Amino acid sequence: MRIGVLTAGGDCPGLNAVIRSVVHRAVTNYGDEVIGFEDGYAGLLDGRYRPLDLNAVSGILARGGTILGSSRLERDRFAAACDNAKELVEKSGFDALIPIGGEGTLTAARMLSDAGVPVVGVPKTIDNDISSTDRTFGFDTAVGVATEAMDRLKTTAESHQRVMVVEVMGRHAGWIALESGMAGGAHGICLPERPFDPADLVKMVEERFARGKNKEARPVILGHVQRGGTPTAYDRVLATRFGWHAVEAVHRGDFGNMTALRGTDVRMVPLAEAVTRLKTVPEDRMREAESVF
Amino acid sequence: MRIGVLTAGGDCPGLNAVIRSVVHRAVTNYGDEVIGFEDGYAGLLDGRYRPLDLNAVSGILARGGTILGSSRLERDRFAAACDNAKELVEKSGFDALIPIGGEGTLTAARMLSDAGVPVVGVPKTIDNDISSTDRTFGFDTAVGVATEAMDRLKTTAESHQRVMVVEVMGRHAGWIALESGMAGGAHGICLPERPFDPADLVKMVEERFARGKNKEARPVILGHVQRGGTPTAYDRVLATRFGWHAVEAVHRGDFGNMTALRGTDVRMVPLAEAVTRLKTVPEDRMREAESVF
Amino acid sequence: MRIGVLTAGGDCPGLNAVIRSVVHRAVTNYGDEVIGFEDGYAGLLDGRYRPLDLNAVSGILARGGTILGSSRLERDRFAAACDNAKELVEKSGFDALIPIGGEGTLTAARMLSDAGVPVVGVPKTIDNDISSTDRTFGFDTAVGVATEAMDRLKTTAESHQRVMVVEVMGRHAGWIALESGMAGGAHGICLPERPFDPADLVKMVEERFARGKNKEARPVILGHVQRGGTPTAYDRVLATRFGWHAVEAVHRGDFGNMTALRGTDVRMVPLAEAVTRLKTVPEDRMREAESVF
Amino acid sequence: MRIGVLTAGGDCPGLNAVIRSVVHRAVTNYGDEVIGFEDGYAGLLDGRYRPLDLNAVSGILARGGTILGSSRLERDRFAAACDNAKELVEKSGFDALIPIGGEGTLTAARMLSDAGVPVVGVPKTIDNDISSTDRTFGFDTAVGVATEAMDRLKTTAESHQRVMVVEVMGRHAGWIALESGMAGGAHGICLPERPFDPADLVKMVEERFARGKNKEARPVILGHVQRGGTPTAYDRVLATRFGWHAVEAVHRGDFGNMTALRGTDVRMVPLAEAVTRLKTVPEDRMREAESVF
Repeated sequence: MRIGVLTAGGDCPGLNAVIRSVVHRAVTNYGDEVIGFEDGYAGLLDGRYRPLDLNAVSGILARGGTILGSSRLERDRFAAACDNAKELVEKSGFDALIPIGGEGTLTAARMLSDAGVPVVGVPKTIDNDISSTDRTFGFDTAVGVATEAMDRLKTTAESHQRVMVVEVMGRHAGWIALESGMAGGAHGICLPERPFDPADLVKMVEERFARGKNKEARPVILGHVQRGGTPTAYDRVLATRFGWHAVEAVHRGDFGNMTALRGTDVRMVPLAEAVTRLKTVPEDRMREAESVF
Repeated sequence: MRIGVLTAGGDCPGLNAVIRSVVHRAVTNYGDEVIGFEDGYAGLLDGRYRPLDLNAVSGILARGGTILGSSRLERDRFAAACDNAKELVEKSGFDALIPIGGEGTLTAARMLSDAGVPVVGVPKTIDNDISSTDRTFGFDTAVGVATEAMDRLKTTAESHQRVMVVEVMGRHAGWIALESGMAGGAHGICLPERPFDPADLVKMVEERFARGKNKEARPVILGHVQRGGTPTAYDRVLATRFGWHAVEAVHRGDFGNMTALRGTDVRMVPLAEAVTRLKTVPEDRMREAESVF
Repeated sequence: MRIGVLTAGGDCPGLNAVIRSVVHRAVTNYGDEVIGFEDGYAGLLDGRYRPLDLNAVSGILARGGTILGSSRLERDRFAAACDNAKELVEKSGFDALIPIGGEGTLTAARMLSDAGVPVVGVPKTIDNDISSTDRTFGFDTAVGVATEAMDRLKTTAESHQRVMVVEVMGRHAGWIALESGMAGGAHGICLPERPFDPADLVKMVEERFARGKNKEARPVILGHVQRGGTPTAYDRVLATRFGWHAVEAVHRGDFGNMTALRGTDVRMVPLAEAVTRLKTVPEDRMREAESVF
Repeated sequence: MRIGVLTAGGDCPGLNAVIRSVVHRAVTNYGDEVIGFEDGYAGLLDGRYRPLDLNAVSGILARGGTILGSSRLERDRFAAACDNAKELVEKSGFDALIPIGGEGTLTAARMLSDAGVPVVGVPKTIDNDISSTDRTFGFDTAVGVATEAMDRLKTTAESHQRVMVVEVMGRHAGWIALESGMAGGAHGICLPERPFDPADLVKMVEERFARGKNKEARPVILGHVQRGGTPTAYDRVLATRFGWHAVEAVHRGDFGNMTALRGTDVRMVPLAEAVTRLKTVPEDRMREAESVF
């Protein structure tokens, strides 16, 4: 078989691990040919791809970024191409496509699937906000980076009586804030799921001040540091398993689905199901953290 | 209420995070009194304990080891004490006991429970070999440490044509070997679950040599480096959740059980169930790794 | 002898390592008594201190912050106290004082010394801007933290065609920017030593864009993450050596000086010399970096 | 000019950083051509090399190992080639050679230099045992790795009453043991410079046992973990500076020397001087550590 793979959307530690795993499983076990589309769906639309053999993926398991590049979806052009899906497939001559990406990428994958393209999706987001999978790769690394920063800030906060405010990623779902806040021992965690009055934050900070902290809050903006660089072991294992199972699904003819972690197992779930709603932090997880306010 | 907590068995990153979480939840939410038995069950038998308030657990979330100390179980003495469980409870005057430990500790916890002591267990093992919980805290840290070592070895192996052999923990269950091997990109993984002829290992190493590697295999023994030091964010979150749920179970009167991760939820499962069989690496997980031989 | 120690000014990885080293050397080798003034010079003025024995410094070598606390200098009150230095010394009854701190702290140390107080200074600044010592502890950690962030950003920048801008510490001296920029492979480094027109920065960024980068520069503000948390091995060793030599100087009666790294040796240099001018990045170090503009 | 570069001897974090720096400086500033000999001196003897342009060294700054490969010196063949040095230079047509390596490599470099080859050496050893340079790159990384392992072991040792024994590199010079022992807070450090009776070690361990430690010493063998993987920021900066200065020396016609760190400056020192004696740990550095026995 000839399997196409692409990565789309923002950066996420583990992308290369998925690509490598797809190539390893497909080439070594099935003798497949794997091609990598460049710069996400743009490469698919343009027919820009390169062959991916074992050499091409050597040494990339622990590397951040994506060797295939990525780009945002050009929606109109993509929709037009879907209308002519058969031609799209013939242009690059692949038997199955494995798009790796977040909500937008998987929605596009579903459009392709509906248009008749044999697709197996792999979900990707550092925000962990894709429903129907327990966790996504990249999230553990993001939480780890944010926690490490908090570890460093804590000793200063304690010794020098300062309040530290750390901004982490997750605009729509507060998973990174929740878990790094718990792991870093935050005194207060603000989540997008629980709209708060900035006055409440000020009040909480003032209460801490009243316990002896100086009135100088120091902001830290981690930004893209959370989504780049080498993935944690957890993310590498999950990404590798996703890639492996995606190839298995291809060879079973199990299309229109995406890989998902359920408990300790990787299962296939319908792409349709994956993208219908955002997985936000539920009330009971907030209660466990205690410091969400 | 007056809640006793103890840690028993070998070291495991996250023990302090559980202790801290128990104290935080019990003291802040319920106004409980928490006492910490010293050196595991030995402290329980001797009535050696100290009060644990918020101050006592300040700054321990990210610290390895256990502030309570630990020791091996003196089986005979312990069995004798179980025969007189009521006295044991009265000596220290607790209403519930939260033992944190591995298979031996949980077996002992079950004996106490059977003898009428109100017990809520928290499973602990870096080996991840306790059935009925998807994962245990400490395991992620151990895998992370082993993976980091392999990352370092890989560049040398590649540039200097050497074969590296890394010994990791997990005598009875190969989870650390499996996941760190996958995360580190090992060419071959030996697991206790799949007995192998040393000759096979030699053969595999020779095959690698034949591909250009020098005939000088370098051994690395990580030993206790895997089970000490600061826990990963993942382990801190899981440990914190276990501690939180253990206190909730105490206040529900939900005794004789232990905390367990099932998918994304923490549930209570019977202590009896937890310790009946070792969770080993199943065949399908080995297949995903491809390099198990 | 009775030796007083204090930490003043902003946080800096290695402060605890100095304190520990002072106590170890003084207590173990000389049988001294060591007292730690709380919150910097404030504790000295108020006579607030606590005894520091071997137990008090156990386990702090690798910990960020300072167990003694710190505070800014109240200049007027301090000057007044210097006028009555004899009384100041008698209040706490010490034979020598070891203040650990940056430029302000060392200037104050010199005032104390001029007023007749037996002082041995230990220089501290993550900015590395104290002349007369080759390096200061804390600097290596700050550079390491900034470099790690850049490592993470690089893979994203490369795969996703983005320009990343990282703000690091060092308002008056660009050592952290210089060395983390070199270590992180920055394409351009802005230093306070070389005033630049913001238009030049825009131009340089645009030139990178012209080579294919998207026009979306992502800012990262590391802030206090650089000055907290566990020190690198380098900083621990340097801090330990400084503490050791400070005690030796005390016992030689070598006052009015501070410890300094010169090549591979720790030497004593006059406090006067240390604080007269800021050590900025010289032209030839900029040339080595090539990317300073 | 046409500059040849090669790496020889064991692995050492920072090798790639030197190669990259040589190429950057030579190509960007001087418009030189750089060629990289493969597998150390073997590539020089065989005339096996490849061109190194900016692309060839892209992304290698933080990577362990060496993109050029390395090998042990074949002494006889090398000596024979030196007898015909002119031919050797003509075979690959280079105007200057920059060999990067340890004592053996630099001795060979000196032989080449004596035979008339224009050589600028760059010293490399994780052991830090080359006299005439304050420090060598790779050493800081090795110390960091060993210290990190000790940090992890300490919490276990403390909580579980165990004695841990860590074997680090440095057969002939104990720098790694000294500095990682100081940074890791070791209770005792054994150095090759101070021959000790194993009975003394046993006695010291027993004394620790007597203070409550269990009689179970746990060995850790870090092995090649110390010499592989990503270099610390310190080592990257030093390696980059060495590469830069090597190219400057080439263009000054300053041959027969090697780069050396002296205080904060990089200077050129005669190859002859560099290899005459091993830089071992002097008595006064041992005294600072206190725990050397």
